[in-house]
Amino acid sequence: MSTASAFTPVRVAILGASGYTGAELMRLLLRHPRVRITALTGERAAGKPVADVFPHLAPYDLPALTKIADVNWDDVDFVFCGLPHGTTQEVIAGLPAHVRVCDLSADFRLFNVDTYAEWYGHAHKAVDLQETAVYGLSEVAREQVATARLVANPGCYPTASLLPLLPLLKDGLISADDIIIDAKSGVSGAGRDAKQGSLYCEVAEGMHAYGIASHRHAPEIEQGLGWAAGRGDIRIAFTPHLIPMNRGMMATTYVRLKDGVDVASLRTSLEKAYAGEAFVKVLAPGVGPQTRHVAGSNLSLINVFADRIPGRAILVSVIDNLMKGASGQAVQNFNIMNGFDETLGLDVVPVFP
Amino acid sequence: MSTASAFTPVRVAILGASGYTGAELMRLLLRHPRVRITALTGERAAGKPVADVFPHLAPYDLPALTKIADVNWDDVDFVFCGLPHGTTQEVIAGLPAHVRVCDLSADFRLFNVDTYAEWYGHAHKAVDLQETAVYGLSEVAREQVATARLVANPGCYPTASLLPLLPLLKDGLISADDIIIDAKSGVSGAGRDAKQGSLYCEVAEGMHAYGIASHRHAPEIEQGLGWAAGRGDIRIAFTPHLIPMNRGMMATTYVRLKDGVDVASLRTSLEKAYAGEAFVKVLAPGVGPQTRHVAGSNLSLINVFADRIPGRAILVSVIDNLMKGASGQAVQNFNIMNGFDETLGLDVVPVFP
Amino acid sequence: MSTASAFTPVRVAILGASGYTGAELMRLLLRHPRVRITALTGERAAGKPVADVFPHLAPYDLPALTKIADVNWDDVDFVFCGLPHGTTQEVIAGLPAHVRVCDLSADFRLFNVDTYAEWYGHAHKAVDLQETAVYGLSEVAREQVATARLVANPGCYPTASLLPLLPLLKDGLISADDIIIDAKSGVSGAGRDAKQGSLYCEVAEGMHAYGIASHRHAPEIEQGLGWAAGRGDIRIAFTPHLIPMNRGMMATTYVRLKDGVDVASLRTSLEKAYAGEAFVKVLAPGVGPQTRHVAGSNLSLINVFADRIPGRAILVSVIDNLMKGASGQAVQNFNIMNGFDETLGLDVVPVFP
Amino acid sequence: MSTASAFTPVRVAILGASGYTGAELMRLLLRHPRVRITALTGERAAGKPVADVFPHLAPYDLPALTKIADVNWDDVDFVFCGLPHGTTQEVIAGLPAHVRVCDLSADFRLFNVDTYAEWYGHAHKAVDLQETAVYGLSEVAREQVATARLVANPGCYPTASLLPLLPLLKDGLISADDIIIDAKSGVSGAGRDAKQGSLYCEVAEGMHAYGIASHRHAPEIEQGLGWAAGRGDIRIAFTPHLIPMNRGMMATTYVRLKDGVDVASLRTSLEKAYAGEAFVKVLAPGVGPQTRHVAGSNLSLINVFADRIPGRAILVSVIDNLMKGASGQAVQNFNIMNGFDETLGLDVVPVFP
Repeated sequence: MSTASAFTPVRVAILGASGYTGAELMRLLLRHPRVRITALTGERAAGKPVADVFPHLAPYDLPALTKIADVNWDDVDFVFCGLPHGTTQEVIAGLPAHVRVCDLSADFRLFNVDTYAEWYGHAHKAVDLQETAVYGLSEVAREQVATARLVANPGCYPTASLLPLLPLLKDGLISADDIIIDAKSGVSGAGRDAKQGSLYCEVAEGMHAYGIASHRHAPEIEQGLGWAAGRGDIRIAFTPHLIPMNRGMMATTYVRLKDGVDVASLRTSLEKAYAGEAFVKVLAPGVGPQTRHVAGSNLSLINVFADRIPGRAILVSVIDNLMKGASGQAVQNFNIMNGFDETLGLDVVPVFP
Repeated sequence: MSTASAFTPVRVAILGASGYTGAELMRLLLRHPRVRITALTGERAAGKPVADVFPHLAPYDLPALTKIADVNWDDVDFVFCGLPHGTTQEVIAGLPAHVRVCDLSADFRLFNVDTYAEWYGHAHKAVDLQETAVYGLSEVAREQVATARLVANPGCYPTASLLPLLPLLKDGLISADDIIIDAKSGVSGAGRDAKQGSLYCEVAEGMHAYGIASHRHAPEIEQGLGWAAGRGDIRIAFTPHLIPMNRGMMATTYVRLKDGVDVASLRTSLEKAYAGEAFVKVLAPGVGPQTRHVAGSNLSLINVFADRIPGRAILVSVIDNLMKGASGQAVQNFNIMNGFDETLGLDVVPVFP
Repeated sequence: MSTASAFTPVRVAILGASGYTGAELMRLLLRHPRVRITALTGERAAGKPVADVFPHLAPYDLPALTKIADVNWDDVDFVFCGLPHGTTQEVIAGLPAHVRVCDLSADFRLFNVDTYAEWYGHAHKAVDLQETAVYGLSEVAREQVATARLVANPGCYPTASLLPLLPLLKDGLISADDIIIDAKSGVSGAGRDAKQGSLYCEVAEGMHAYGIASHRHAPEIEQGLGWAAGRGDIRIAFTPHLIPMNRGMMATTYVRLKDGVDVASLRTSLEKAYAGEAFVKVLAPGVGPQTRHVAGSNLSLINVFADRIPGRAILVSVIDNLMKGASGQAVQNFNIMNGFDETLGLDVVPVFP
Repeated sequence: MSTASAFTPVRVAILGASGYTGAELMRLLLRHPRVRITALTGERAAGKPVADVFPHLAPYDLPALTKIADVNWDDVDFVFCGLPHGTTQEVIAGLPAHVRVCDLSADFRLFNVDTYAEWYGHAHKAVDLQETAVYGLSEVAREQVATARLVANPGCYPTASLLPLLPLLKDGLISADDIIIDAKSGVSGAGRDAKQGSLYCEVAEGMHAYGIASHRHAPEIEQGLGWAAGRGDIRIAFTPHLIPMNRGMMATTYVRLKDGVDVASLRTSLEKAYAGEAFVKVLAPGVGPQTRHVAGSNLSLINVFADRIPGRAILVSVIDNLMKGASGQAVQNFNIMNGFDETLGLDVVPVFP
């Protein structure tokens, strides 16, 4: 199966292609009319065909996996970097200057390198590069993304959380000091490494919270909220939960309204912020977003509800954690960086059931 | 398979035995050393053996299903009532006086009949009987349960929510005006009726919130909290979510601490309240309760965590919705009502995986 | 989101659009460059927008549901018919002559109307039309499909079973009298009607066989095998099983080799039969097909293995029951009928995980 | 929670207690009225409380994990051995003579040590001990089990497969040369080690065959069939499949009837063989066994069906792979070895849903 195009394709490398975000990038880029995949790396699987690590991709024409050290950079215009957190900074710092990068790790998401060091346990290894990075929440940072060389692709929880919160904070409708995010994720967010805690029998038919008040996505969310609120000291309640499903992410967010604000105002703010967006949809009043309704797509569904506690409201947002929460948004940012229509390669309808 | 006992057994009828709570009652009572099941009712399945509606119970010696009208009440000492909400009040009002009752429906849980009418859409049909009913959260109402003729078995969400909250409110450690309960339930809570929304393909591999700020368990939780706080006007945020798992329920509850209170005080209050309890366990600091660790058992696991927002804390509690959230607690109340050891028939170790 | 095309689109109606095969057709046709969906029918949901029955399609521009009686046939060139078995014959018989049809029901699959009557419990209602129908196993019947007015889209089990068996029978490599098909299906094959047996709690975390030696797909498979073997009296062992997964179908087929035939001969036959096919792939020796590796795609993966019993071999084949087993093959047939590239609209990469 | 008993308890050690069969043994033995657990071993987890490896057992009074070398054998009467295949022979050979053993590994199941070496890749390390071992399919080998010092607990697939086949072979009703076993297992059978292939995302929502014609349980099944048929050269078709469920195992077995034999004869043979058995139940004609109907229990459900191919029949049998397929049958054998009622500790009703 092939895709023809009259244009010179962008030659793309995926570093760390053997994980779930790598597979998802390949799924999207194989159909992208302006892309040719020229390199795929996997240090442990180097030398193997993609079919060995992803049998579902066996029918497709893809290069074999190589080590990063063996990539021919003359044949690469753009890098999607899906390496583990902590190893990415030095790798990206060592890439040739002509290569533009969308990094899916957390390594360049925190702009305060002290915050990075505090949460990730080691000093930042590419401070200069950090200063040039753009935090790529596409709908919010479209202009900066367009011209960036290095885009830090947002985390899954931050994407699901920030999309409904940012317009409300910017419009001054909610308090920044009482934001409670109860988040839920499918298991693919835990990655493909063999860990006992990710075994089917440890995950199926049950659920639990993890990283309570200590998850690394909390400072990333706080950074985004701080930007919208014009403050640097925001602290949120953030509790992620692991749900027995492959894909899907939901944030149920409890907010306190500013005086005189009601739920209708929040709805207006959200609808205004996302009018015309291809991938962010504010649902009709009363309709609850469901993760299964975005599975396999780059969509985010959002809604806002009145609360029983006076002066409070409830936001619900869903994404596919591998799509808008990772590889889908990465391709969206790739499109923006290359001046393409933002939906190129992302015209995938949700798969239901 | 049979169970011998030197004692005269309590003769038990289960009304509405063809649902999941009915099956769970049979699973427990078949092994209960002081019980003999003498009647099982199911209006649509009347005349059929239990094996026709529950093949997994085919190997056991159980009476065939009958209509309620055909039960021989001379052969019944105790009724577990698992009828649908709304049909129960009249049925129980018509039972002979010698029969004691544990009702698993919502029909006798709300003590204010106006509140009942508001949330359930019709006037209460047994107001006198309501005044004699005891709300059977076993650990809290043990003494009243012991002598009650009619126990209203608490709902699943109220049980999961109230167990960690009640001691903290009674001890005056948290605000009653800022309680946010983000709750999650397995699918068996939706019952066994054929509904499109409960089909495997509509539920598996995805999740969603439902009844946002409008679920009928909200006033039931508020009633319990009001009792502990000595107030009648409490309003909570309560958001239930449907999780793709058969059993399991979790409440992640966000509370505001009273001045001078810290997380250690909450832990002390919880440990004191549940010291010596067979079924409620406060976990060691930092250990997150998981629904899969109580599956099939009557256990509730509770823990408390510091929050990133100053002055806030996070409570996590789990139960098996069919056990401590329904049939298990019903058997616990049955034991209390009959002066038995509270764990009789409930010595079932969690099934993992 | 929209799809542009320089060509006049084929105007398509989907009859019975509110089931899972209907949703899957919409997923595919929304992206098909040569299609415009002009009518969607659903008798019970008539008048509602698609978003009411399929919230995941809310972001797309689709006509509202109507009754079949209200379709404007002047605006329809092609019909995909997803009505329940038994209701389809009369509906299709009543369609205007200019409309070509791909029928996803079983109503036109059995060419012997007596066999139809025996298995479906009523006389065939459109015998003349039956004689014009083509059984649309695309890879096998490509030429007849191309010119047919009415294509009977094969059942899911027959598709999964026949693809590996037909070449072997045609090449005279296996016995037609000792074919044992042990088949497994995901739950979406049971449809979207509210049935207790399809509830999450009745299906998840367990499995069972059903329709043992009595499933209606058995005569359909036998008809296909008979065609390949040039005989009308073939009887097979066919045991379908229900597996707790949304999508996916597998046939593990046990065959007896003709004298002098070995597994390598079977492999050669299969590779020859499917060389150059876009959607049927014979895997490398030893690689086991997995349903998850075709999910969301129109692919079928096939392999053949030696057996421990001398003179026997084992065939394994997988498809996505909603794709190659229903809507995907229907679109493939649509492409063939219209002279389009067979992969148009079907360039969807499997979704994993 | 505790269990009282007027009898001197059997002091039990579980070697290799940190896997799923270990957890299941603890679930059963904690409630067994004649057992006291005095030692639990886990080489990597030595020194930790059980709660660290199995949080669901935290509420129970159990000894901490130790190394095997540190067990005080004066305090042990009986050993359940759940060590990995290959490491068990030497460990059991080194146990003190007064300790009786039920071994859940495959190390003592194959009585021909050459067959063992062929399938397990190394010479048997305890040949003398092997000669004293009893293959403990409880219903079949009750008398030998009663007096054995070492019982080799059967594998899960052999248990599910042999229960329906042995009576039919012994009664001479089916051919031994045309037995085709299509078997399906839940994921817990793959153990608790962290393997990529057992991750939720690699297993959920899909299925596949594995070890086709090469699984190590094939010679174990053939050994059992050979014993019943009085022959040593039986070869079967055996194809295991991995199903996305925690527990459950099913064997769909295709057999050829001897001349003059019909399905009714098979039923009579099975009913006679298992009349009075507590744990093996032949279902009523037409009722299909389902794995979910035995989950958590030691039951096996069996049925036999006519086939469409003349002269053939289909057997269906289900067990819970962790119960009758492992720990449940081990406790059953323990009861037999100690002269206890066979159902002691095994009176656990299936958990549904």
